[in-house]
Amino acid sequence: MSFELYYWDGIQGRGEFVRLALEEAAADYIDVARRPDGMAAMMKLLKSRTEPHIPFAPPFLKDGDLIVSHVANILFYLGPKLGLAPKNEPLRFIANGLQLTITDFVAEVHDTHHPLSTNLYYEDQKEAAKQRAADFITHRIPKFMGHFERVLAQNPQGNKHTVGRGLTYVDLSLFQIVEGLRYAFPRATKDIGKRYPALVALHDAIEQRPNIEKYLTSERRLDFNESGIFRHYPELDQDA
Amino acid sequence: MSFELYYWDGIQGRGEFVRLALEEAAADYIDVARRPDGMAAMMKLLKSRTEPHIPFAPPFLKDGDLIVSHVANILFYLGPKLGLAPKNEPLRFIANGLQLTITDFVAEVHDTHHPLSTNLYYEDQKEAAKQRAADFITHRIPKFMGHFERVLAQNPQGNKHTVGRGLTYVDLSLFQIVEGLRYAFPRATKDIGKRYPALVALHDAIEQRPNIEKYLTSERRLDFNESGIFRHYPELDQDA
Repeated sequence: MSFELYYWDGIQGRGEFVRLALEEAAADYIDVARRPDGMAAMMKLLKSRTEPHIPFAPPFLKDGDLIVSHVANILFYLGPKLGLAPKNEPLRFIANGLQLTITDFVAEVHDTHHPLSTNLYYEDQKEAAKQRAADFITHRIPKFMGHFERVLAQNPQGNKHTVGRGLTYVDLSLFQIVEGLRYAFPRATKDIGKRYPALVALHDAIEQRPNIEKYLTSERRLDFNESGIFRHYPELDQDA
Repeated sequence: MSFELYYWDGIQGRGEFVRLALEEAAADYIDVARRPDGMAAMMKLLKSRTEPHIPFAPPFLKDGDLIVSHVANILFYLGPKLGLAPKNEPLRFIANGLQLTITDFVAEVHDTHHPLSTNLYYEDQKEAAKQRAADFITHRIPKFMGHFERVLAQNPQGNKHTVGRGLTYVDLSLFQIVEGLRYAFPRATKDIGKRYPALVALHDAIEQRPNIEKYLTSERRLDFNESGIFRHYPELDQDA
């Protein structure tokens, strides 16, 4: 039976971290909301008064009757099934911890353009966004990227992967982080290859994996745009 | 061997969600940073250049050599060991999804007083905080609390617990959410017992559990204060 991924159509957004894992593993999955009537099916589940376990928001994954919500939780669940989690069980909690740091970072990326409210347009909170984005570039990018660089450097199995000796969903998510930051903040990320060499080398290695390459050039991979998490507003970008 | 919890001294903060689980289970644990030289031990781990798996930030839990970071991940790890996770494995992913919704909500609570930057004092972002807090009270509290009320209502095992038929760490975390919101926003939460009756009934039931009662009246339970996640700034509170 296919996995069913539920996420908003039209953006990469948070769903993309799940898609990259499914695509790398060439898993059998349906991107429900991109199908005819898919949005209606997603809204029906979100609003259901009879489902025993309702998700708070997309993305969520349906595997048979089980609905798993939140990116890190979906990846924790899928990782072993897709061969993208460490075999060693304690290391799975290390991978999950890393994925949750990525989750926090993604929320901060979102808040650079929506610091006051998700119910207001960007244009109506632009001044606050400028302050938050400046702080993000000065303090938060170095803090998070520096952390992941250090994680790679201290991995006892070598700096080609974040956890253990093999590819995991965490590596795939970090690829997406580098992609997204470069799209949203081209000035701030100009030198990231020099500053975070192991992280950018990991990004480059992921980009060349056959299934990822195939996915990135397919129609299934949407372009970044100004409705997603990573948005390019030149007025929020600056040299690091 | 004792579990070692590492978290900032002086506040309940995010560490409190882990403490409540450890206390309910009467687990053998050390709250490291509250011991003499504990802060130094925590900083040493955070800054270590030799640890194979470094946490991004407190709280983290050390169990032997394994360091597990992020509240939801710690609880996912501890839950089965403490008898506070569902026995049914798929339901553990439901519990984790709920805990991650709580995590998101806690981040939003934090951002009501720090909408622009964690590197600025509250006083230096007070105007933006007023806007964000007003939005939080009007839109976000109802959205999250309404969700948890619905989760309780739709639990096939009854509305006494969020997942399955028994107590889990999710229930304990929701107790803390209700406590924290009432402390930070007494005006906005005046009627929550009427609006979210099952959720507040769950809160009241948790409060009366013997180990929780013992903990709450002990010196180990710190008071809420204006350095933690839930802060009471009257100018950010308003009637709902």
